[in-house]
Amino acid sequence: MSQISRGLENVYIKTTSLTYIDGENGILRYGGYDIDDLVDHTTFEEVVYLMLYGDLPNKIQLQRIRVLLNEGYEIPQQVIDMIYGLPRDSDAVGMMETAFSALSSIYGSPWNKVTNRETAIKVIARASTVVTNVLRAKEGKKPRIPEPSDSFARSFLEASFNRTPSTEEVKAMDASLILYADHEVPASTTAALVTSSTLSDMYSCVVAALAALKGPLHGGAAEEAFKQFLEIGSPENTDQWFQKKIVEGKARLMGFGHRVYKTYDPRAKLFKRFAKQLSERNQEAKKYFEIAQKVEELGIQMFSQKHIFPNTDFYSGVVFYALGFPVYMFTSLFALSRTLGWTAHVIEYVEEQHRLIRPRALYVGPIRREVIPIELRG
Amino acid sequence: MSQISRGLENVYIKTTSLTYIDGENGILRYGGYDIDDLVDHTTFEEVVYLMLYGDLPNKIQLQRIRVLLNEGYEIPQQVIDMIYGLPRDSDAVGMMETAFSALSSIYGSPWNKVTNRETAIKVIARASTVVTNVLRAKEGKKPRIPEPSDSFARSFLEASFNRTPSTEEVKAMDASLILYADHEVPASTTAALVTSSTLSDMYSCVVAALAALKGPLHGGAAEEAFKQFLEIGSPENTDQWFQKKIVEGKARLMGFGHRVYKTYDPRAKLFKRFAKQLSERNQEAKKYFEIAQKVEELGIQMFSQKHIFPNTDFYSGVVFYALGFPVYMFTSLFALSRTLGWTAHVIEYVEEQHRLIRPRALYVGPIRREVIPIELRG
Repeated sequence: MSQISRGLENVYIKTTSLTYIDGENGILRYGGYDIDDLVDHTTFEEVVYLMLYGDLPNKIQLQRIRVLLNEGYEIPQQVIDMIYGLPRDSDAVGMMETAFSALSSIYGSPWNKVTNRETAIKVIARASTVVTNVLRAKEGKKPRIPEPSDSFARSFLEASFNRTPSTEEVKAMDASLILYADHEVPASTTAALVTSSTLSDMYSCVVAALAALKGPLHGGAAEEAFKQFLEIGSPENTDQWFQKKIVEGKARLMGFGHRVYKTYDPRAKLFKRFAKQLSERNQEAKKYFEIAQKVEELGIQMFSQKHIFPNTDFYSGVVFYALGFPVYMFTSLFALSRTLGWTAHVIEYVEEQHRLIRPRALYVGPIRREVIPIELRG
Repeated sequence: MSQISRGLENVYIKTTSLTYIDGENGILRYGGYDIDDLVDHTTFEEVVYLMLYGDLPNKIQLQRIRVLLNEGYEIPQQVIDMIYGLPRDSDAVGMMETAFSALSSIYGSPWNKVTNRETAIKVIARASTVVTNVLRAKEGKKPRIPEPSDSFARSFLEASFNRTPSTEEVKAMDASLILYADHEVPASTTAALVTSSTLSDMYSCVVAALAALKGPLHGGAAEEAFKQFLEIGSPENTDQWFQKKIVEGKARLMGFGHRVYKTYDPRAKLFKRFAKQLSERNQEAKKYFEIAQKVEELGIQMFSQKHIFPNTDFYSGVVFYALGFPVYMFTSLFALSRTLGWTAHVIEYVEEQHRLIRPRALYVGPIRREVIPIELRG
């Protein structure tokens, strides 16, 4: 009897040179570089180069990435119109999905080893434009295209909020982009890989990834975690909330626990640092940072023996909130960043290990039967 | 050392009561019924019921399916506008993908055992409206919504072509819908399953499936097969074309061979029958049917010893062409039909065997390295 690989757990779908995770020891590396090292000493643009070309760029290579990103922000007016034509209360990731489907209709092109990486860079730039305008459409603002700058993070924040962000804000946004850029092959990346395996175009791979990311079990965790802090409302309510909801109510503590990490998620530490920094100048964010810290303390007391610790989504919401993003945008910010991981994985798959993905299903239904005329059916 | 499951070949991702394939003996059954039996003695609506509820319907149950389909054709004007707003030369499946993304933004709702099947039926009805209008938009015609009737196939043909189809045409369309309705878990269905595993909504599952189907290795085979016949142009050119292209040129014969079937695909026989019938009253179609027959004969002479036979896509294009569809619509017709299989599989997965799909990737990249300041990078 054949075995069902439930959730494809422990099934290896590909090899990768992109991301290494050691869940026991809380280690995450991109291309061999510790995530802390990358956040402290590089920018998102350098990580884009690392993931697509296999090494960190020198100055000339970095300049080329910047030019390509800056050139990529423009998207056709009809796609902008589509975003603004959807109901304002539409799901933000769903709006991204629609925009990327349209981009796929317009820009979708065959795979080509010579151009795949430049296509990926354009996809990332266009994701910035799409996310900015999903936010602006939902907020009732006018369309705006990110403007060329020496920082992808700065261009994105500027276009999103119509104001010049502080150096600190740009650094926190940049770090978030790095921290969510890849995490091996979760469901969204798997959907992208399956799509790439039919040699569907790169935009369609992103569409499939967004469709999967949208599900509440995947991309929505940062929003869910932060909604807890909103519900608590003020630091002094934390103990009571925790006791009632988590201890007595046995509700799941959102932002805690991860199928892969059995210790503190290395990304959570970094998000915590940026959350602390940003909240020092932002009273509202400070309140939520304090609440988050208290929830973390209580959560660790309760769950650490079961190897359940804060994951990347626990503090990221405080960072996004402090930067000025509404909660409904958190998953789209994840998506903006993960567009790098999705495109890098599909390029790796198509160029080096391509094979049509076609698993099997084990038939357990009725054995052979014959059609009975409808008049005689019970 | 961990083994990579290339293409997930022979990995069982789920159990199913939907479709049984015996590739050695050329058997395909839905819910235990031979595909021939279903085509000869049921309609697509009955197969919808079979796939979603596990058995063929009685008269009252069938009537209920008809009512739900008839009620489901309406879609919001803004989605119609989107379809007609895309460039007319956009890929037809990409246009479907865009429309379904927008539908997901508007109608996407959580999974619910009580309503999942009715949602699926609405998704199928809306697919009919979307495909009709993709065709009409690309042909420069005005929007039209399929009208309620006692036949899903008839409503679809009528809306697509603004004319009353013959009984024979309705039967051929209906049979095509049955024949492409499911085929276990090819890449498109796998993408839908991965998406459903995050509990993303059913429209998003269809979006992911369409993104995968769009790839030239999956849904495009019927178009590719028919393009050969167009290229041959007239029956008397067949021998020469085959000799030059396939024998000497070693080009792949499209519409031949299948990873699962090692004998004649049972669907190909049925499509051939309908192609023959329809082409008797249609001179152009007759020419292509004759070409196809000649190519089949030569293909079987050359490849049958290698267990390579005509697959479902070999004659389906002749049927679609005889019905009046342009070649660029063939994959969308496949998609319209397969929407049933996609939704039936995701319902089975979410309701009975749900688990987040999260395979692994084996890291083979550089071991740990430290970031060197950009000035010092080579």
